[in-house]
Parts: sequence; structure tokens; C-alpha cells
Amino acid sequence: MAVQVSTKWLGEMRFESTNPSGHNLFIDAGEENGGKSEGYRPKALMLSGLAGCSGLDVASLIKKMKLKVDDFKVDIDANLTDEHPKIYDKVTMAFHFYGDELNEKKLQKAVDLSVEKYCGVMEMFRKFAELDVQTHFHKK
Amino acid sequence: MAVQVSTKWLGEMRFESTNPSGHNLFIDAGEENGGKSEGYRPKALMLSGLAGCSGLDVASLIKKMKLKVDDFKVDIDANLTDEHPKIYDKVTMAFHFYGDELNEKKLQKAVDLSVEKYCGVMEMFRKFAELDVQTHFHKK
Repeated sequence: MAVQVSTKWLGEMRFESTNPSGHNLFIDAGEENGGKSEGYRPKALMLSGLAGCSGLDVASLIKKMKLKVDDFKVDIDANLTDEHPKIYDKVTMAFHFYGDELNEKKLQKAVDLSVEKYCGVMEMFRKFAELDVQTHFHKK
Repeated sequence: MAVQVSTKWLGEMRFESTNPSGHNLFIDAGEENGGKSEGYRPKALMLSGLAGCSGLDVASLIKKMKLKVDDFKVDIDANLTDEHPKIYDKVTMAFHFYGDELNEKKLQKAVDLSVEKYCGVMEMFRKFAELDVQTHFHKK
């Protein structure tokens, strides 16, 4: 399937980028790099892409498996290398589930299905980064 | 350098994700996947990350090299594979520069510097996709 994204320069360090959702997004550099921080830093969008892709898999499985979850979040901690071109070489992704009736076994299964089978962004990250996926359960 | 991004489930298929810029972003699935399209599709954020990363390099070099450019944009056309996990296996990135006084040689140099030296997102994409970078010049 073809996916198109068009990204237009708005002058200085600002850009406006399309997304298949129909919602455009703004990109800008920080002050330290000549920007005004009036948009997202582009490289970190890859981390939101990873968390969102895997998060959507898990949200979908929570619904399908009728699991009781009050809240969940995905925290990503990535190491950016020091020399150009700077890449994320180590990425820790931690799922945190909150609730009094968490089915830990099934939630772990949902995370595993995303990691091992469904999440295409994770498959792409595997090609350049060392990945560590963690699952944590919290009673509210 | 450590980069952190936290992505919180908002119920259904919606998520709110942080960005080092301080601006949060919303993620949602399309209607065909149980969402309401009230946020960005996460996988395509990777393409905005790529265009933004390389676009920022070029914007910075346009300023540094004092080049005259009225407008420019970066169009990405990516092929998503059919089977899970779905990845971008072929990516065409086309720079389009607009203006009456374009220094084509120096603009090509700016693109080459980003592609070959600076753009970390491109370096990551190289590990999983076949990349084709094109440069087009347009008189206004």
C-alpha cells in the first residue's frame, strides 16, 4: 500500500507536514538550533510512532479480549548516539497498566502479540536499535 | 543523550504523546480500525520525522550558505508491505525547490550533506528500507 506524506517549508526552521488522518502537524527546531520550538522535534516523532503503533495494538486487544484496564501508558527511553548521523541505538519501551482487576497473563499476551506479530514500527526499530520491552502492573 | 517520550491511553483508540518540544500530540486509529480519526496515524509519523529531520538540515544549510529559495517541500512516497508486521520497505523522498534564482549546485550539495552526513532519521530508515532521494528544481 502506498502512503504519501508531504512536508512544506514555512520559512526559518518551521515545516507543516501532512498525515493520512487528514490532520496536519507542525515541525520546528528548538532555540538552540535556530528554531522557535513552535512545532514538534521530528526525530522524537519516531518514538511517538512506536508507542502509538504498539499502543493501538494493545488497546485493540484489550477490547477484543474484554480486559478490565483503568489506564495504561507506554514510556519510551531512547539513547541517541553522539556523532552525526545521530540514531536511536538503544530503546526501552515500558508498558504500565493500572487497575484493580488486571488480568496480568492476558495483558502480557496482548503486549507479546504486538511485539512479536503486529507492530510494524517495532519491526523497523529492530533493524537499527537494541529493544527492551517491559510490562509493569499497578494496582490503583 | 537520553530522549524520553510518554504516551498515555485516553480510552478507545486515542493516545496523547509527549514530545521534547513541550507540545503534546494526539494519536488515533481511523474508523476502519475502530478509531475516530481524532489524531495522527502513528506509523506515518515516521515519514514526517524523516522529512522533518532532513528538511531541517536543508533549511539550516540554506541559511548558512545564503541561498535564495522561495519555497521548498519534501514529498515522501512509501510502500507499506501487505503482511503483519507491516513495514515501509521502499521510500522515495523528493525535494522540490522553487524560485527564480536557485543555485542548483549548492542546493544539491545541501541535500547531499543531509543524506550522507547529518540526517539520523535517514540513517535509521536505511536499515529497513530501500531509499531513493530525488531533487527537483522549479522556476516560479
